[in-house]
Amino acid sequence: MPIVSDNELSRRRQEIIESARVCFARHGYEGATVSRLEAATGKTRGAIFHHFKDKEELFLAIASEDAARQAEVVAEHGLIEVMRRLVRNPGSNDWFITRAEIVRKLRTDPAFEARWRDHQVVLDQAVHQRLEDNESMRDDVSVDVIQEYLTTVMEGLIIKLAAGEPASRLESILDLVEQSVRDPGAGH
Amino acid sequence: MPIVSDNELSRRRQEIIESARVCFARHGYEGATVSRLEAATGKTRGAIFHHFKDKEELFLAIASEDAARQAEVVAEHGLIEVMRRLVRNPGSNDWFITRAEIVRKLRTDPAFEARWRDHQVVLDQAVHQRLEDNESMRDDVSVDVIQEYLTTVMEGLIIKLAAGEPASRLESILDLVEQSVRDPGAGH
Repeated sequence: MPIVSDNELSRRRQEIIESARVCFARHGYEGATVSRLEAATGKTRGAIFHHFKDKEELFLAIASEDAARQAEVVAEHGLIEVMRRLVRNPGSNDWFITRAEIVRKLRTDPAFEARWRDHQVVLDQAVHQRLEDNESMRDDVSVDVIQEYLTTVMEGLIIKLAAGEPASRLESILDLVEQSVRDPGAGH
Repeated sequence: MPIVSDNELSRRRQEIIESARVCFARHGYEGATVSRLEAATGKTRGAIFHHFKDKEELFLAIASEDAARQAEVVAEHGLIEVMRRLVRNPGSNDWFITRAEIVRKLRTDPAFEARWRDHQVVLDQAVHQRLEDNESMRDDVSVDVIQEYLTTVMEGLIIKLAAGEPASRLESILDLVEQSVRDPGAGH
C-alpha cells in the first residue's frame, strides 16, 4: 500500500473540489450525478468518496470554501464589497444557480439544512462582527436587522445574477444599499 | 358534442390553475409531471392541455395570476406592501420555491425566459408607475435604480422564505427598506 502524505491528500481533495464545482454549476445539484462527477474529476467514485462521505458533503465543502473566502472579504471590507465582487465577476454565476436549486432541499430536509447552516456560520459570524465593529454604521437599527437586510439583498442579487440579469443594472443599486446602512452623520 | 359556455370554460380553466398551483408547490416545476398534474386536477391530460398548450403555459398562467394580483396591490400601496403581505402569509411559500427552481431554466432557455418576462410585464409596469407617481419617494436616485433595488430585496425575501427562514425576522427589515427609498424631507 503506497504511503500518501497529508499534503498529497489535501492536494487531491482540492482537485476534486475544483472540478466538482464546475460539474455542479453545469448540471445543478440533482443533475450532478455520481457518473458525471466521476467524468468531471477524472476519478472513480471510490476515490471521490474516500475524501467526501457523500455527494452532499462534497457540495457543502464547495459552499464552505465560498463562505470562508467571503468571510475574509467581509472582515476587511464588509458584505457590500462581497456583493460588488459578485456583480463584477459574473463567471461565478453558474455555480450560484445551485444555491437556488437547493432551496427546496433546505426546506424539506432538516439534516441537510443543519449541515448547510454549520457551513455558513463562518460567514454569518464575520458579517456580525464587521457590523459591530464598523463605526460608520447607523445605530438606530439593531445589528441583527442590518445583517438580515444585507443578506436578503445579497440573496436577491445572487438569484437575479443566476437568472441572467445584466450585472451592470445590479451594480447600480449597491450605492443605495450602502448608504441605507450608514450613519448619516459619519464621514460626511 | 355538448355546447360549453365561455363561462363554463373559464371556470374549468380556473379550477385547473388552482389545483396545478398546489401540485407545482409540492413537487417543483420538474417534479410536477403530467401524471401528477392529472391526479391533482382530477382531469385527463387531454382536458388539461385543451386549456393550456403545454406544462410551461400552465405554469406561466399561475405565475401570471400572481403578477396581476401583486400589480393591483402595487398600484394602490406599493411594492413594499406586497412584501409585507408575503411575510405575513407564509402559506404561499411552497409555491414560491418554484421561483427558485426555474432560475436555471430562465438562464438556459431563452424562449422560456421571453415568455416569463412577458407574463411579468404587468407587475414591472405597475411598480414603475407607482414609483413615478409617488411623491414621497427620494428623487436623488432614478426610478429605474429604485425599482431594481426593491425587486432585488423582494427576490431575496422570497428565496429566504422559501428556504424556511422565519417570517418575523424578515418582516423586521421592511421598515428599513421603506425608509431607504423615501425622500427624507417628505412627511416628517
